[in-house]
Amino acid sequence: MTSRFSFTLSATDGAARTGVISTPRGEIRTPAFMPVGTAATVKAMLPENVRETGADIILGNTYHLMLRPGAERVARLGGLHKFMNWNRPILTDSGGYQVMSLAQLRKLTEDGVRFKSHVDGSEHMLTPERSMEIQRLLDSDIVMAFDECTPHPAEEGVAADSMRLSMRWARRSRDAFGDRPGYALFGIQQGNLYKDLREESSTALKELGFDGYALGGLAVGGGQEGMFGVLDYAPAMLPADKPRYLMGVGKPDDIVGAVQRGVDMFDCVLPTRSGRTAQAFTRRGVLNMKNARHQEDPRSLDPDCACPTCRKYSRAYLHHVFRAQEMIAATLLTWHNLHYYQELMQGLRDAISARALDAFVDGFHAQRAEGDLPPL
Amino acid sequence: MTSRFSFTLSATDGAARTGVISTPRGEIRTPAFMPVGTAATVKAMLPENVRETGADIILGNTYHLMLRPGAERVARLGGLHKFMNWNRPILTDSGGYQVMSLAQLRKLTEDGVRFKSHVDGSEHMLTPERSMEIQRLLDSDIVMAFDECTPHPAEEGVAADSMRLSMRWARRSRDAFGDRPGYALFGIQQGNLYKDLREESSTALKELGFDGYALGGLAVGGGQEGMFGVLDYAPAMLPADKPRYLMGVGKPDDIVGAVQRGVDMFDCVLPTRSGRTAQAFTRRGVLNMKNARHQEDPRSLDPDCACPTCRKYSRAYLHHVFRAQEMIAATLLTWHNLHYYQELMQGLRDAISARALDAFVDGFHAQRAEGDLPPL
Repeated sequence: MTSRFSFTLSATDGAARTGVISTPRGEIRTPAFMPVGTAATVKAMLPENVRETGADIILGNTYHLMLRPGAERVARLGGLHKFMNWNRPILTDSGGYQVMSLAQLRKLTEDGVRFKSHVDGSEHMLTPERSMEIQRLLDSDIVMAFDECTPHPAEEGVAADSMRLSMRWARRSRDAFGDRPGYALFGIQQGNLYKDLREESSTALKELGFDGYALGGLAVGGGQEGMFGVLDYAPAMLPADKPRYLMGVGKPDDIVGAVQRGVDMFDCVLPTRSGRTAQAFTRRGVLNMKNARHQEDPRSLDPDCACPTCRKYSRAYLHHVFRAQEMIAATLLTWHNLHYYQELMQGLRDAISARALDAFVDGFHAQRAEGDLPPL
Repeated sequence: MTSRFSFTLSATDGAARTGVISTPRGEIRTPAFMPVGTAATVKAMLPENVRETGADIILGNTYHLMLRPGAERVARLGGLHKFMNWNRPILTDSGGYQVMSLAQLRKLTEDGVRFKSHVDGSEHMLTPERSMEIQRLLDSDIVMAFDECTPHPAEEGVAADSMRLSMRWARRSRDAFGDRPGYALFGIQQGNLYKDLREESSTALKELGFDGYALGGLAVGGGQEGMFGVLDYAPAMLPADKPRYLMGVGKPDDIVGAVQRGVDMFDCVLPTRSGRTAQAFTRRGVLNMKNARHQEDPRSLDPDCACPTCRKYSRAYLHHVFRAQEMIAATLLTWHNLHYYQELMQGLRDAISARALDAFVDGFHAQRAEGDLPPL
């Protein structure tokens, strides 16, 4: 176990990369997918089962945790890892995105964002300094700089102002974070869909120097086309020897396309949220387990999947427990979906190592095009 | 693994007994507590984790399963064990109690009960013959005779009429069940709180001959005093060499008192339902995990408990996840409660084996009288 944060690339294939992020709490194989554990739990899952899916790291949400149970409380209880029984790395977001999308009566100034809690109406202030403090109190391994996620669509002038505010906040985040061996601070590139703004943002971040770099503002509103358009040039603006993290993305084909374009890390609520709404990810596309056609189907979700759900339960059972609104429904489908995502990441890592990513991606798309299983 | 159903007593202490029920799907150590798996799942739990708590057998509800997903469907899918991924013994109730408490527009006749489903309004008929057929289609290991659970309070004449109907249904159940090696049919003693009716019922059942005998109508309405009053004499009316099952009971002290009076098997929704409503069973009594006093308590629910919840999580975490309405809250607390119940049963079995049941019961009550943990 290393005592420092480091990133080692082991292979590349075109723009795609595979490697390992080392932290005192364990290694993160890249490209990596981070399940989202918003409120100190990956919804419907036990942490040991999240690990069994192959996850090396999970994400926690600063905004939710600062409101409930509170960062100081988590610190007094020994930190987020102990609190939620996950002893591997945790990345926390800065709260910047969620305070603007979830909080009430928010007011954004140069200093930060003042807002009322959506939980109990209490008043709070989130600034770069407070975000760094909260993430330190949570004992997060990878801390995100506080930024404003530029809304879509944005005129270039608006996008520029927003990005430059985020860059001033990035400097304050960098200063407030200080020097914490074993912990990492990531900067976040903004600039919406404007190449010159992405370049300006990258230059500003590189001058400050971060342990990793995120690509911000691409998960919401621009669509896959807009996102891939930016990813065709933006990752190369960032240092090649640091991890690149595409925040809040995404669907399986988003991830595949982003890995091809040089991204190393991802997070998204899709596998967990879909698991609670009866949407199953499979090699042959997405299935809705509430659909009546599954009600007497003895087959597993995906005969090629080795997850416990596919090994032990039929489509008919999954259909039944969703219809009966039993909790095991969300657990079994979330488990499968997380397993699917982690297996996809392993496939991408193996393909890059073998310099065979194009063939892997062709196979990925071909299998999805086949559609659901043939009849028995 | 035996190919037949059998019951072997290994020790007695006063009226209390300990032994083993052998079935082709596994052994059931008695006194036994059966977690309730109403709709083909023990709510909020994975079946392998139910087994980890020490459960040898679970209970399924005929009424719920006949309506959704349907007994014929379960049979076509390979039976209830395969469907829900539980390969150990399952006991199913007859549907008689739940059809009278849950169904709509029910009409009771000599033949059976006609009713409308609470799920979709469809019309159904439940008779002794249909109940036996459904339980066979589910592939239940221990089948319950179809009966009417006499409501509380009941005048003696009403209780007698109800009991005698149940005895006529017991004969039809016995006839319809037939001879099924490896499977067991249990008769149900009724008679409300009237000793002479309990005696008449027992005589009728013994003439028919069953593999086990249940004590019916004691879980609802009579209170612990009424129940213990009947249990002071009713178990001895039943054959000593067959298991005795007290249906729908109960609280930990109900179980302790019933074991002292010669009961071998129990089922109750209390540990699972309480797990979903933040009620924790501990040696020192019941805790409400939503209570604010737990919000920063680093201690486990019960420092003497070896369940995963107590080994890995603080009261503060349990409080947090209940407040945040996270699914893991129900899972962790159900797991603990089931573990508590199974550990209680193991304690009772060990105490009977050691002929030290009185001392065990004294310790059980003394520890509860102490109340919750002392402050840190």
